[in-house]
Amino acid sequence: MKVLHTVREVVEWRTQNIDPRTQKSGFVPTMGCLHEGHLTLMREAKRENDFTIASIFVNPSQFAPTEDLDKYPRTLDDDIKLLEAEGVDVCFAPNAREMYPQGIPLQVKEQRGPFVTVLGVSEQLEGRTRPNFFRGVATVVTKLLNIVAPTRAYFGQKDFQQFTVLQVMARELFMNTELRMMPIVRDDAGLALSSRNRYLCAETLGRARSIYKGLSAAAALLEQAGASGAERAALLECVRAHWAPYEKSGEFKVDYVSIADSTKLQELEPRVPRDRDVVISCAVYVTDAEHPDTVVRLIDNVLVHAVQSSN
Amino acid sequence: MKVLHTVREVVEWRTQNIDPRTQKSGFVPTMGCLHEGHLTLMREAKRENDFTIASIFVNPSQFAPTEDLDKYPRTLDDDIKLLEAEGVDVCFAPNAREMYPQGIPLQVKEQRGPFVTVLGVSEQLEGRTRPNFFRGVATVVTKLLNIVAPTRAYFGQKDFQQFTVLQVMARELFMNTELRMMPIVRDDAGLALSSRNRYLCAETLGRARSIYKGLSAAAALLEQAGASGAERAALLECVRAHWAPYEKSGEFKVDYVSIADSTKLQELEPRVPRDRDVVISCAVYVTDAEHPDTVVRLIDNVLVHAVQSSN
Repeated sequence: MKVLHTVREVVEWRTQNIDPRTQKSGFVPTMGCLHEGHLTLMREAKRENDFTIASIFVNPSQFAPTEDLDKYPRTLDDDIKLLEAEGVDVCFAPNAREMYPQGIPLQVKEQRGPFVTVLGVSEQLEGRTRPNFFRGVATVVTKLLNIVAPTRAYFGQKDFQQFTVLQVMARELFMNTELRMMPIVRDDAGLALSSRNRYLCAETLGRARSIYKGLSAAAALLEQAGASGAERAALLECVRAHWAPYEKSGEFKVDYVSIADSTKLQELEPRVPRDRDVVISCAVYVTDAEHPDTVVRLIDNVLVHAVQSSN
Repeated sequence: MKVLHTVREVVEWRTQNIDPRTQKSGFVPTMGCLHEGHLTLMREAKRENDFTIASIFVNPSQFAPTEDLDKYPRTLDDDIKLLEAEGVDVCFAPNAREMYPQGIPLQVKEQRGPFVTVLGVSEQLEGRTRPNFFRGVATVVTKLLNIVAPTRAYFGQKDFQQFTVLQVMARELFMNTELRMMPIVRDDAGLALSSRNRYLCAETLGRARSIYKGLSAAAALLEQAGASGAERAALLECVRAHWAPYEKSGEFKVDYVSIADSTKLQELEPRVPRDRDVVISCAVYVTDAEHPDTVVRLIDNVLVHAVQSSN
């Protein structure tokens, strides 16, 4: 596997090695600290394409000044070994100056250069807590797609809103890459894999598994509902019932629970219909039992597909 | 010449006809109402590339609700004849819904979908009078470059700030197109060609020629200055001396005169140095002598290149 650090090297490599008229390339952008979720994306990229490119870049522009950019786990040597073992062809691991030639201060007011925003699907849910998060994601993914010029790019469903934002961006800016979303990879007890899980002790991880239990119970309730759908309030209650002990003890602090249509990310109320694709998603601040100073924000989601109308 | 109206047709045409590994394509985006300035760009594109593509699209997102979108001159049939005569291969003439699948209301607050902003070079000069102008330009050019995927794209120097914005965008988003800027085409008396000139009577056009006289006199003054450069105030006075009669009569209303470094578009004061590339630019509201209700905003600029240091 080639490990490349500059834009120029990547562009040279792909123009010399890939014939876009006859060969396909698959690209998996990551922030490193790879786990099985990422590796599943690599395998799918490898399966569907002639070449596989991964990137490892902790993107400053998607972090707020108050967030954990400096503390975000960086495990480049381990990551490279994992990618090599998967048979990835190229790993692009640039530094921040390479990706942001004018630098990238965390304060938005000090930033210079081009930025991509996606209006309509960026402001709600994750965007409410993290107002410039999706602008950062859309901008860096635009840069990476221009550099790598892949046939397909792969993303995990765990960041469902992120995929929605990028899908709208790619379609409506007419980018020449097909975006693919792969299902969430979970541990045996249902916890969605995340690079941030490593901050939590075993006991807390055990409790965090109730996040998915709540979401999937609500999804089951909606799936069983008749053609007229279900009450939003009943679904929310179902989610929260699974979290109640930890909310009561203060170990969980709920940022949001959303029941939205999965295309426009608009909340569905007072009833949640069965004739639309629905995403039930959440963000929960989880306080570690062993180190109560450690608070990790976990996100998860479940999709409920529309019932086919029978007419 | 093929006239294509949908994104899909253009992508199909280029993938079927152009081998990006061995063939070059040149692209000239326009808002139609073509004049000799545009045609010069077409000729240069044709000279340097195997294929030439033009687009004609009056881009709503670069107009403010108060501006002249509805009145902007549209002369598609004539334009197509002109492009055909130049030997252009493809003319892409989409409608607004094709370029903005979610629609494009003029009120920014109502807009949905992806937008590209270029911070640092969009806010001053034209951006002060037209706060969302460059966001509209950067967004539509991103879309067009993704659709056409040209080797090179051609722009006129008349919109110098526009070129600067697009150059920063293309470089720092790592777009795979080289942007080329071609000199301003002027009439015999020095007036920069513009689609909006057609709104003005002969008498007013005659007066409008003093715009360039002022700019070029100041440029000459700066070029003649020694190594220490010239006083900004003296250069500004030189510009305005040529406009004084029309400012006094109220026929000219100056929006701005700028003397800035040509890379970052930062004003140079109190002295204008000779060791940097400088752009002297302006926007002037010109009232038509025959139809005083007609006020046209004209822009122009002159570049003064840095003196090579002799060490």
